[in-house]
Amino acid sequence: MTKTPDSVVRSFIDQHQAGFLRDLADWLRIPSVSADPSRSGEVRRSAEWLAGKLRETGFPVAEVWESDGLPAVFAEWPSGEAGAPTVLVYGHHDVQPAAKEDGWETEPFEPTVIGNRLYARGAADDKGQVFFHTLGLRAHLAATGRSAPAVNLKLLIEGEEESGSPNFGALIRREADRLAADLVFISDTGMWAEGTPTVCTGMRGIVDCQVDLYGPASDIHSGSFGGAVPNPATAAAELAAGLHDADRRIAIPGFYEGVVELTDRERELFAKLPFDEQEWLAVAKSGATAGEAGFSTLERVWARPTAEVNGLWGGYTGPGRKTIVPADAHLKLSFRLVAGQDVERIETLVRAWVAARIPAGIRHGIVFNAHTRPCLTPLDHPALQSTVRAMGRAFEQEILFTREGGSGPAADLQDVLGAPVLFLGISVPSDGWHSVNEKVELDLLRKGVEAAAYLWGDLAENFRPADGTPASGDGKPSSIDGN
Amino acid sequence: MTKTPDSVVRSFIDQHQAGFLRDLADWLRIPSVSADPSRSGEVRRSAEWLAGKLRETGFPVAEVWESDGLPAVFAEWPSGEAGAPTVLVYGHHDVQPAAKEDGWETEPFEPTVIGNRLYARGAADDKGQVFFHTLGLRAHLAATGRSAPAVNLKLLIEGEEESGSPNFGALIRREADRLAADLVFISDTGMWAEGTPTVCTGMRGIVDCQVDLYGPASDIHSGSFGGAVPNPATAAAELAAGLHDADRRIAIPGFYEGVVELTDRERELFAKLPFDEQEWLAVAKSGATAGEAGFSTLERVWARPTAEVNGLWGGYTGPGRKTIVPADAHLKLSFRLVAGQDVERIETLVRAWVAARIPAGIRHGIVFNAHTRPCLTPLDHPALQSTVRAMGRAFEQEILFTREGGSGPAADLQDVLGAPVLFLGISVPSDGWHSVNEKVELDLLRKGVEAAAYLWGDLAENFRPADGTPASGDGKPSSIDGN
Repeated sequence: MTKTPDSVVRSFIDQHQAGFLRDLADWLRIPSVSADPSRSGEVRRSAEWLAGKLRETGFPVAEVWESDGLPAVFAEWPSGEAGAPTVLVYGHHDVQPAAKEDGWETEPFEPTVIGNRLYARGAADDKGQVFFHTLGLRAHLAATGRSAPAVNLKLLIEGEEESGSPNFGALIRREADRLAADLVFISDTGMWAEGTPTVCTGMRGIVDCQVDLYGPASDIHSGSFGGAVPNPATAAAELAAGLHDADRRIAIPGFYEGVVELTDRERELFAKLPFDEQEWLAVAKSGATAGEAGFSTLERVWARPTAEVNGLWGGYTGPGRKTIVPADAHLKLSFRLVAGQDVERIETLVRAWVAARIPAGIRHGIVFNAHTRPCLTPLDHPALQSTVRAMGRAFEQEILFTREGGSGPAADLQDVLGAPVLFLGISVPSDGWHSVNEKVELDLLRKGVEAAAYLWGDLAENFRPADGTPASGDGKPSSIDGN
Repeated sequence: MTKTPDSVVRSFIDQHQAGFLRDLADWLRIPSVSADPSRSGEVRRSAEWLAGKLRETGFPVAEVWESDGLPAVFAEWPSGEAGAPTVLVYGHHDVQPAAKEDGWETEPFEPTVIGNRLYARGAADDKGQVFFHTLGLRAHLAATGRSAPAVNLKLLIEGEEESGSPNFGALIRREADRLAADLVFISDTGMWAEGTPTVCTGMRGIVDCQVDLYGPASDIHSGSFGGAVPNPATAAAELAAGLHDADRRIAIPGFYEGVVELTDRERELFAKLPFDEQEWLAVAKSGATAGEAGFSTLERVWARPTAEVNGLWGGYTGPGRKTIVPADAHLKLSFRLVAGQDVERIETLVRAWVAARIPAGIRHGIVFNAHTRPCLTPLDHPALQSTVRAMGRAFEQEILFTREGGSGPAADLQDVLGAPVLFLGISVPSDGWHSVNEKVELDLLRKGVEAAAYLWGDLAENFRPADGTPASGDGKPSSIDGN
């Protein structure tokens, strides 16, 4: 049998897998629940544990970074070769809350292997996916005979992702110089399914707002005044109902301007995914699909902008009746954006559209929350092609593509660093993120190690920093948060 | 000076006014707050006081009637003449809560005359307006030399009106035989204003419901699923927004069928009322008028059916954002109905209209609360003409007409008794019903006494029980509640 680079990688992983899993289990035992103030010490312990392990892995720099909240971990290992691309890997070491009483079949912070699965809080989200980079990197070095990675490798592993990353933006702005990179790799997502390895090519952005509508100075009698004064609840309903036209397209003028349309190739590849609408509906806990005319369900959630009423309220909501014209009514609206849509421009359009539809006699206010830009890497981007090749070598089958319908703060990174965001992840939908019995498939974890082992060499060979940024939303960098 | 019947009435009132006011003050001192369980004994004391006073007035029958709640008072005084119409006067002896600390300038249960006003809780709503019938009746007897009223007079003065009349329907059904009447007079309303005496000719009915819309089995992620499944909050908004067309007419097919349109004469008389839109808007605490095209503000609230969103809720309503497709959303809708609209038919139309507009994948439920029928007495109805003549003699000026935009439970009476409902009231909008510093204008209270004194003789002369029922909503009797 010829000793191919891939077989060297595989042998190396075989040899070190047991130790790798023991180490991961040690880390998973640390209940680094960022949302629980009583466990902030555990989040710190997790950061220190990881920094130590990264030094042990060989990173010449591995530091605990303080923020105004819980600490992140930064590590750096220069390639030593001129012209090598610089890659920043993003993940997080904090986890969601978990307790056996919630319905876990194992202790969430006592990692337990059952069959070919490792059960623990954080097994998939995100400690397992952060940790595959350690063994992956060692396998890369072993297989290439290098003493340093083929790329300038940086890791930023934050400690507040599960709490909404409140201090992440400030941290990365403060440390922008040390974080500078040509590419950002997010290892905090997943693939289509166990038998269908995929690479994610983008995330949607988000703009969201609260619209407050004020009518009478207080609730007034609907018998005495109803039908003769404007009702803010009706005005709120008319706004929400006016968001979509009969084709369920968003009816705000100019909203679709600049949208990067799906290519025929992307639609063709999406269509190759083994999508079962009934299964999808079961996960969506919904009774039917519905959405923009002319697009499939996956295209709707991955590649099309959407508008959603996240909440609405006003007037009497108790039992029985209270016959009033309410004093006020409120809407929470969010807009998922795709590449080509500028977040600030969309905010301006929404603001103007709302203002133009407020009836006489109703006052209104509108407040936007922090937005997140969309990001998208074209299929022919050299870094994406490297990723696909690395995944293909690990999985030995065709790699398809997904996108992420959500949006997230981690890739404020793209905003701050001006670098395209790519994704390397091996988690599958059954892994139970944020739920009970979170697990990682050991076979897939190993594929993640392997893909990481192949990726740096391929990138060093095929990606030139001058290849530039991908077709992100608005030419501007993007960001990722958990929303 | 000729001793006309009217001058006899006036002299009689002059002689007995002081005693009448002393008695009323005694009654007003009883804090018969039906909403306050600690004062249920006072409500009973109020009923007993009134029954005693009615016996003293001459009623051969005056009883405290028990219900499942607080007691009502029933009194009866037969005319003794064959063919005399039977009239039932409705009022209530319970009052709204009141306390000096709320901002009263006098003790609410210590009646106080300041200038020409009597301040006390219940002065106008409704003890004053019940009590004017006692002196009115005595003046009627004195002026006509009769020993019994010209009509078979019945009084039903309930004790839970300010608590929503929870036991009133059952009580009047139980006592329907003894309550049987050809006409019902409500003395629990008012007139346009101090210088503008008016008679109310009808009340709107009400049908109201809660619509519950269910989408995903729980809130789901708007990034993963939004735009690809139906959103119940959007469906709720679309329902609420679809209630009206561009002319602010109700868009439910068939909704206006049968509506008794305003006559030219009614519109002309409404237009004679000194209506100041800016003043009205100040009372409505609203910034603009709005409503069905082609109708004035008064026509809209008095004579046109309306649809109102009384409440709506669904999804996330807290601070910041939560990017979900909500599991459910809810609407409280009410419809004010006018004569010619059948409450059951409207419920059927609303139910069908809602069902037809629920998108696939959304389940829904709709629950109607107890409805109230509309009532309307045509301007040429003989009992209304008697009322107008009695008021005209009291006020010595033209009597105009109003309607009541609200709806109310007292006239389950019309439902149960099959008798038309008329209104005799002298309260004015400044009287402070349900507010601090409630008062009655002593000049108007005296006009009430006087009008009551003229009414029974005029009715006996001009109204025949065979004149039948007025053009109430659906040919069926109507009801009145405080809604």
